[in-house]
Amino acid sequence: MKNKYFSVLPIGGVEEIGSNMTLIKTDNEQIVVDCGMLFPYEECFDINYLIPDFAQLDASKLTSIIITHGHEDHIGALSHFLKAFPDAMVYATKFTLHLIQKKLEEHKVTFQYKLYEPDSELNFKGVDVFPVHVNHSIPETCGLIIRSKDKHWGSLYISDFKVDLESKHEAPIDFKRIKTLLSECKQTAYFLDSTNILNDGKTVSEGELRTDLKSLMERDEDRIFITLFASNVHRMTAIAKMGIASGRKIVIMGRSLKAYMESAFETGHSDIPTDHLFQPDQVKGQTGKMLVFLSGCQGDFLSALRRFSFGEDSTFKPGPADLVVFSSKVIPGNEKKIYRIYNKLTEFGATIITASDHLIHASGHPGKEDLHMLMKNFTPNFYFPIHGESYFLKKHYDFIKESYPNVKPYLIYNYEEVVLGEDSVKIEEHEAKEPRLIHGKALEIEKTQVSQRRKMATQGAVFISYHKTMNHIEITTLGLPLMAQDLIENLKKKLLEQIRKDLVSREETYFKDQVKIATRQFYNNFLGYKPMTEVHLY
Amino acid sequence: MKNKYFSVLPIGGVEEIGSNMTLIKTDNEQIVVDCGMLFPYEECFDINYLIPDFAQLDASKLTSIIITHGHEDHIGALSHFLKAFPDAMVYATKFTLHLIQKKLEEHKVTFQYKLYEPDSELNFKGVDVFPVHVNHSIPETCGLIIRSKDKHWGSLYISDFKVDLESKHEAPIDFKRIKTLLSECKQTAYFLDSTNILNDGKTVSEGELRTDLKSLMERDEDRIFITLFASNVHRMTAIAKMGIASGRKIVIMGRSLKAYMESAFETGHSDIPTDHLFQPDQVKGQTGKMLVFLSGCQGDFLSALRRFSFGEDSTFKPGPADLVVFSSKVIPGNEKKIYRIYNKLTEFGATIITASDHLIHASGHPGKEDLHMLMKNFTPNFYFPIHGESYFLKKHYDFIKESYPNVKPYLIYNYEEVVLGEDSVKIEEHEAKEPRLIHGKALEIEKTQVSQRRKMATQGAVFISYHKTMNHIEITTLGLPLMAQDLIENLKKKLLEQIRKDLVSREETYFKDQVKIATRQFYNNFLGYKPMTEVHLY
Repeated sequence: MKNKYFSVLPIGGVEEIGSNMTLIKTDNEQIVVDCGMLFPYEECFDINYLIPDFAQLDASKLTSIIITHGHEDHIGALSHFLKAFPDAMVYATKFTLHLIQKKLEEHKVTFQYKLYEPDSELNFKGVDVFPVHVNHSIPETCGLIIRSKDKHWGSLYISDFKVDLESKHEAPIDFKRIKTLLSECKQTAYFLDSTNILNDGKTVSEGELRTDLKSLMERDEDRIFITLFASNVHRMTAIAKMGIASGRKIVIMGRSLKAYMESAFETGHSDIPTDHLFQPDQVKGQTGKMLVFLSGCQGDFLSALRRFSFGEDSTFKPGPADLVVFSSKVIPGNEKKIYRIYNKLTEFGATIITASDHLIHASGHPGKEDLHMLMKNFTPNFYFPIHGESYFLKKHYDFIKESYPNVKPYLIYNYEEVVLGEDSVKIEEHEAKEPRLIHGKALEIEKTQVSQRRKMATQGAVFISYHKTMNHIEITTLGLPLMAQDLIENLKKKLLEQIRKDLVSREETYFKDQVKIATRQFYNNFLGYKPMTEVHLY
Repeated sequence: MKNKYFSVLPIGGVEEIGSNMTLIKTDNEQIVVDCGMLFPYEECFDINYLIPDFAQLDASKLTSIIITHGHEDHIGALSHFLKAFPDAMVYATKFTLHLIQKKLEEHKVTFQYKLYEPDSELNFKGVDVFPVHVNHSIPETCGLIIRSKDKHWGSLYISDFKVDLESKHEAPIDFKRIKTLLSECKQTAYFLDSTNILNDGKTVSEGELRTDLKSLMERDEDRIFITLFASNVHRMTAIAKMGIASGRKIVIMGRSLKAYMESAFETGHSDIPTDHLFQPDQVKGQTGKMLVFLSGCQGDFLSALRRFSFGEDSTFKPGPADLVVFSSKVIPGNEKKIYRIYNKLTEFGATIITASDHLIHASGHPGKEDLHMLMKNFTPNFYFPIHGESYFLKKHYDFIKESYPNVKPYLIYNYEEVVLGEDSVKIEEHEAKEPRLIHGKALEIEKTQVSQRRKMATQGAVFISYHKTMNHIEITTLGLPLMAQDLIENLKKKLLEQIRKDLVSREETYFKDQVKIATRQFYNNFLGYKPMTEVHLY
């Protein structure tokens, strides 16, 4: 009798949405599943992204990393991972690999890889891993069935999926394979997506969007602009073909849309007839029917959508004859940025259509009905909600507890290792590490330094230098209101007085500290806050 | 025949939600309606709030300011206004005046006021103003009917309202007064609230919340925590009385809840029996049924709700036996802050109830059905959507255009003056002024200075001083990653070399500029961005 078959240890992605990384551990091997980035939770001042900490990864045991799909929250930290573990074998499907290769080329990182198919079998030292085709919002998304060699334990791990029975682009989630492979096991567990658990019903199918999207493409407006999540290359292909059928020229603007479409073309996921594709300058100033794709549906600052909406694009300016379609949803936290875009477009007179007006967006995550469908196909013994903030994990946990009394759900967070024993599971807690902050040229910046940035941003900064023999003081302020600059002469007088009285013969550190304290107090009296202050002494 | 009876000039509140201020102008008088604050739209680094610019206000003509209700976006800039126009007469109802008085005491601003009632008549030089009782989410909210002395023109101005036929606390909006007063006019216009125009139906009544709120109060949990918008003292009173009926002790935590309730008690808007009210330390460590009100339903950083949810309150810690009720909605932009609170509470094991789970929140703004009810009561000739971002104004405009072909709607923005002529209106544009940024001790800070703060926040800062005769250089960095500090010795060497070669004999400005450029370039090579740099020279 064994007390551990294998274990599943989430490093990121449970507790938050993003930075997905999970360890599959056996006694003599570590297999990583995904390595994604997280976008900053609160204002972090130009921190580009966060990555999971690698402290739990053991280079002597780590052999492989399996990528489930090509979203940034699953592949975005790969360049950092591969710098730390250059010998790891990367497993990915064709489309996902294409995205990874382009990304790592940019970072000048080389790596070794093996392609897998949704019906492959990947054999490792202590476990076998079976990818399973699932539906999501990017092509070639896979779940993973992880089984102990003796088939005693089988786990289904799907961080992102939905059940889509009506897509025109891909088969429905492979229920049969899940059932077949797990039915052979004595003990089974699900690790499943919590993103859409607040949706009581069934997630809309991509196929259901066709009617409304088609009728929009057939509208009278000459120019239709449309934005959507760039990775949804199937939807984009469908829309482009509807546009062509309505006699529209197709223009694609924005780096991320072009990059995803390039991968889609090269791996057979898009068949837009290229003779209908035009560069912006080929149609500049033209009238006639066109359909312009714009990246940046979340209102990102440098995106094509934002530039266009603010009237800053050199080819297209929004006007009263234009239709602007948002085939997307607002990710929580982006409301203000997106409303700003709605407002700007409105002020230019354009007509806006969103997913509140028509059925033109479908989520890629399961509602409760999707989960019921999966549970009906095969019901496991144990159940672990993943991929969601704590509140969502708990809602997911409650849902399973109420709906499936024979299934044992657990509420786990990052750094809680699920150890699969003979006929039970055990949760082992590890010391949680904060994700690491990445900025600038993909470099780490420490939390203490970000907190200095925050202080300067909210309280300004003062730079003082003092020359003893000249008895001269110089003061520069940054980020203080102009009235504070008018006070500089007063501050100089005050500081010189204090230096003469108390400081002139004191040692350097004490001298600097006292000048700093006096300066911060001086501004506090006027402004109500204390600027960061640095002192140089000669 | 006159070509101007009076005009209506919005300074703030049209185009954005907040900083409401509108000018009523006749040839020889200016009357201001409301003077509110706006919360920063994008990240502004501890800017507390924005206020409308007063450039359009003419001290020689400005006699009065009428306040429609006591929300911060209508009274929050009053202290600034009254410092600039100390002779203006403030008109307000009893409850609103109480709120204003407390606010201005804090700012040590004195002012003269006249109380008005919802059936008063306020006579000015060129117009008469008739307040009208409306429903909203704070007691004593009024719309204003503004009529020319000869009754030729009558305008109804309601920036915030809903139609509530089932409140237990106040009468429904006074349709009869609106109809009576406007029916006497030849030309009429509406200026109405766009906040909830995306709601096709009828806004929920406060009365409709009673069933679900009551059943929550009757639940088994000993401790119920509840948060709501502090200004909704009627709802708070209703909930407190339900709690008392269920045998609960009542505790109120948080500055804003206490302040609004104090005004409510003193003006007869709350009748919670005070012998059921307890201070936190009176119930600390007690078991038994209690109901604790927490301010901060938007997740504000220093609020009682956030402190409690993060386990930082000294009296109450959240636990698995607790129920936490959000009788509120998420204002767009606050999603992340509020989800963070849900997550923290979940991690402590508390049960969360929101307005998605039960009918426990009602908006204070009109859905389309509310607007239909008002239009059915009396239909004006002209119509101006106000109180909303551009996108909402446009939706409101479209709605009126489609539903009421005999009414002429106009899309106006801030600084567009609606001039009411004989039988037509004319829009006169004025130079738009940006709202002013207020920070620290209620002081203005300039945009240029905020932009310096942003630069330091995103790129860090470097302070350099150089002493010529000693040939000594000192460098301090703030907000740069630690690796950048390791580079300081390299930078010193590089700068000293450049100084020796090119700069030693150059004049001060050139010298400083070159050191600055070299430093910024040096860091750019390593980090990918250029820190703000200041140089002192001796």
